[in-house]
Amino acid sequence: MNSQKKDTKTAIFDIDKEKDFPDWFTEIVRVAELADVRYGVKGFTPFPPWSTMSIELMFDILEEAFHRTDHLPMIFPTVIPEANLRKEADHVEGFAPEVFWISEVGDGEKLEERLALRPTSETAIYPMYSLWVRSWRDLPLKRYQRASIFRSGIKSTRPFLRGKEFLWIESHNVYATHEEAKAQVIEDIEITKEVCTDNFGLPVMAFKRTQWDKFPGGFNTYAADALMPDGKVVQLPSTHDLGDNFSKAFDITFLNKENETVHAWQTCYGPAISRIYGAMISIHGDNKGLRLPFKVAPYQVVIVPIFKGKDADAVLKYCQDIKKNLQKADIRVFLDKSEETPGWKYNYWEMKGVPIRIEAGPRDLKQNKVVMFRRDKMERETIDLKDLKKRVNVLGKEIDEYLLKSAEAKLEGLVVDAERFGEIDDALDHGKIARVPFCSIEMDGYSCAEQVEKNTRGEIRGTRMDIDEEPEGLCVGCGKVAKEVVYIARSY
Amino acid sequence: MNSQKKDTKTAIFDIDKEKDFPDWFTEIVRVAELADVRYGVKGFTPFPPWSTMSIELMFDILEEAFHRTDHLPMIFPTVIPEANLRKEADHVEGFAPEVFWISEVGDGEKLEERLALRPTSETAIYPMYSLWVRSWRDLPLKRYQRASIFRSGIKSTRPFLRGKEFLWIESHNVYATHEEAKAQVIEDIEITKEVCTDNFGLPVMAFKRTQWDKFPGGFNTYAADALMPDGKVVQLPSTHDLGDNFSKAFDITFLNKENETVHAWQTCYGPAISRIYGAMISIHGDNKGLRLPFKVAPYQVVIVPIFKGKDADAVLKYCQDIKKNLQKADIRVFLDKSEETPGWKYNYWEMKGVPIRIEAGPRDLKQNKVVMFRRDKMERETIDLKDLKKRVNVLGKEIDEYLLKSAEAKLEGLVVDAERFGEIDDALDHGKIARVPFCSIEMDGYSCAEQVEKNTRGEIRGTRMDIDEEPEGLCVGCGKVAKEVVYIARSY
Repeated sequence: MNSQKKDTKTAIFDIDKEKDFPDWFTEIVRVAELADVRYGVKGFTPFPPWSTMSIELMFDILEEAFHRTDHLPMIFPTVIPEANLRKEADHVEGFAPEVFWISEVGDGEKLEERLALRPTSETAIYPMYSLWVRSWRDLPLKRYQRASIFRSGIKSTRPFLRGKEFLWIESHNVYATHEEAKAQVIEDIEITKEVCTDNFGLPVMAFKRTQWDKFPGGFNTYAADALMPDGKVVQLPSTHDLGDNFSKAFDITFLNKENETVHAWQTCYGPAISRIYGAMISIHGDNKGLRLPFKVAPYQVVIVPIFKGKDADAVLKYCQDIKKNLQKADIRVFLDKSEETPGWKYNYWEMKGVPIRIEAGPRDLKQNKVVMFRRDKMERETIDLKDLKKRVNVLGKEIDEYLLKSAEAKLEGLVVDAERFGEIDDALDHGKIARVPFCSIEMDGYSCAEQVEKNTRGEIRGTRMDIDEEPEGLCVGCGKVAKEVVYIARSY
Repeated sequence: MNSQKKDTKTAIFDIDKEKDFPDWFTEIVRVAELADVRYGVKGFTPFPPWSTMSIELMFDILEEAFHRTDHLPMIFPTVIPEANLRKEADHVEGFAPEVFWISEVGDGEKLEERLALRPTSETAIYPMYSLWVRSWRDLPLKRYQRASIFRSGIKSTRPFLRGKEFLWIESHNVYATHEEAKAQVIEDIEITKEVCTDNFGLPVMAFKRTQWDKFPGGFNTYAADALMPDGKVVQLPSTHDLGDNFSKAFDITFLNKENETVHAWQTCYGPAISRIYGAMISIHGDNKGLRLPFKVAPYQVVIVPIFKGKDADAVLKYCQDIKKNLQKADIRVFLDKSEETPGWKYNYWEMKGVPIRIEAGPRDLKQNKVVMFRRDKMERETIDLKDLKKRVNVLGKEIDEYLLKSAEAKLEGLVVDAERFGEIDDALDHGKIARVPFCSIEMDGYSCAEQVEKNTRGEIRGTRMDIDEEPEGLCVGCGKVAKEVVYIARSY
């Protein structure tokens, strides 16, 4: 192996994640080859195979959840005519500052109308919904698309977590009543928990956002936040009760059963898979590198053959049979036949986060056994070959449960009550989230929120929608009797 | 059902495809809800679920082929910095006139460097390959991405066939030797035939393109053409031997086994799935609408329950059990429980192209039988319920074989020999392809090609690479002894 290659393929990773998370993140992205920041346009990063393969599996899981809940896929253009983007006043105010504009083509030919790279797709989709929705029989209309979206406003960029192009999937649903739309928001939060928590091992807190922090043009926004290793929260999917605001702006009406033309009610929901991937590797990783959940690991099992000289052929054959056997059971498996030493391979695949490693040498072959190593706990066991397939699947489940439990354990005690600005900052400085009495998350609480932002390093994430909480005490801003319990955190 | 809805959901389709293909295409796209041309930006069309679901299945089939041939997925940004696009002179000359340019963001802020919406991704990917490829041990590097690409130059636009944004998948491979790159081109053509012919039922002819019609910046281009119902050919995937031209422009070098730094050899291959979809529906459709192959039909089976009054519950239960049963066997099945009449449903799903229909009423229930209808031949059969699952799968295969055979039959006798311009036009006017003696597809044949374009309505598609052909006679342009046999056709 030449020195130049050694340069890129480092096997040993050792960075204290809790102590220096930003450095850990930057380095694991580089060393595990997850994204390349050298592309030359800030906020745009190519994703090599190791991240892409997991991201594709994550898309699959989310799409399955959409199919189960009767959403059908569709594909919309990447560009939006400017006139459409400007149809809803609050929406354009919120997004126009972030838009990449196409105003010319070819050798300087100006377009008659500028085109926006979609920052989100409401204004692309809803003019079509205006044509597609006609009768109550067309409703509910539940559709989603997988898409890239583009936002230029992001300042300090980070691969996956804060990019200018991100990979997402967005559903856009239309209902005959506001009640059904509100029920969809609950379904969306359930999908979020099922996907992010049950499949990716990420505990989340579900919030109703404040009126000044909601989706531009919508009625209400609900979102799931996860806690990152540096004590900041990151927004995972958010879902929006759009009310009838967009249906009025885009003229989405239908004939109801009474034969009256009325406006429809809408929701949209946008999980950014690339950001969820960033949160997932951050939360599960340890000082030795990635720890990928079994469900989304590109390779669930890596086989490392151990041999010298004369044993080589027999051991390799033994490993190849194991590989075929596992593949037949739909397990994603990679046999590392490269020239590196077993020790190098152990380190390398541990850094890459492969959940299960199988080691097999001449002695294992003789006894019809293999050594199995689980990356999450860094533990070995020896098992009979005949039990392998079953054990891999069981162990895969155990690993995913353990990763989730570990992530949940880290959350314990991290939400602390605070009643003054000093207490809030004290909590945030210790990587915690402050639970704070507050007057209102409607617009009349806005001046109190401004005080919070001025006097602390945190921001209000909203009120919990997944648990009931009774406010006690006085609003941290105005000192009036609190009607809400809000959570304050630093955020991505 | 209200009248407005009837407006969009037409059940009966009846247009003579052979007689008026353009009208047939426009209407089937509208009535089957495959694409909506009312988006408001020429060349950009939303794809509703019925086309999207097939397109997703087509992507899956192509990705499986890539996985089988050791390609790994990656994801690159949608935008390319202008400096990168300009690095290869012929390439930029070929693509710059087609580029959508982003030059400003937000409220009028100018970008320091313009960004191109990728017209193809060589100039996005190869600067990264220059960093990723270091040693012969990194080769071959076989990678692909699923992506949207953008070309502004298309004039008379058509959904799927001629758009400004199209959905494709592109592989970009790097090799240590030119021989390996040339072998990749052969593999690409094999993948094309396996995917387009074996899976989508499309017969293709594989050509080596002329030097004046190759991929800008490459050494040689090879492409598969299919014949459309109007006698024009449409290019399905093309693959390019890039030689070492891009590796020189983008500095993609590696240390070979002799420890010398040398330039790598490259290929790229870009199946445009949206265009293949357009060709597929055109070639298989008939006067009653779509005929979708079993392998890529969104619903492979539609169940139409037939009942009146008191039988309703029992028949519906019978149909629901059939649905569950088929779903367990991974068959994509839809039970049409809507209020329409059975006759309306028959017409509707025939127009939509669902390969198999199951009809079940009270008498079928009593006898434990169902009626099966195959869309391709419009034939019915009655079978026992216990044989259903097996029969559906067998029939699915038969349908796909029949669609391919029908498409092949239409090609017979369509390639005719021609030696003069008049004979060429005569062939083209009868919806045929002319097989013509020609001097050379290297640059020294260019002036003869100009004469062909001036004096006929066709264009030279190149020489066949899938069969050996011996030229006879004199070049149609210069009258010298022909060294090649070229095919001349009208094209999309």
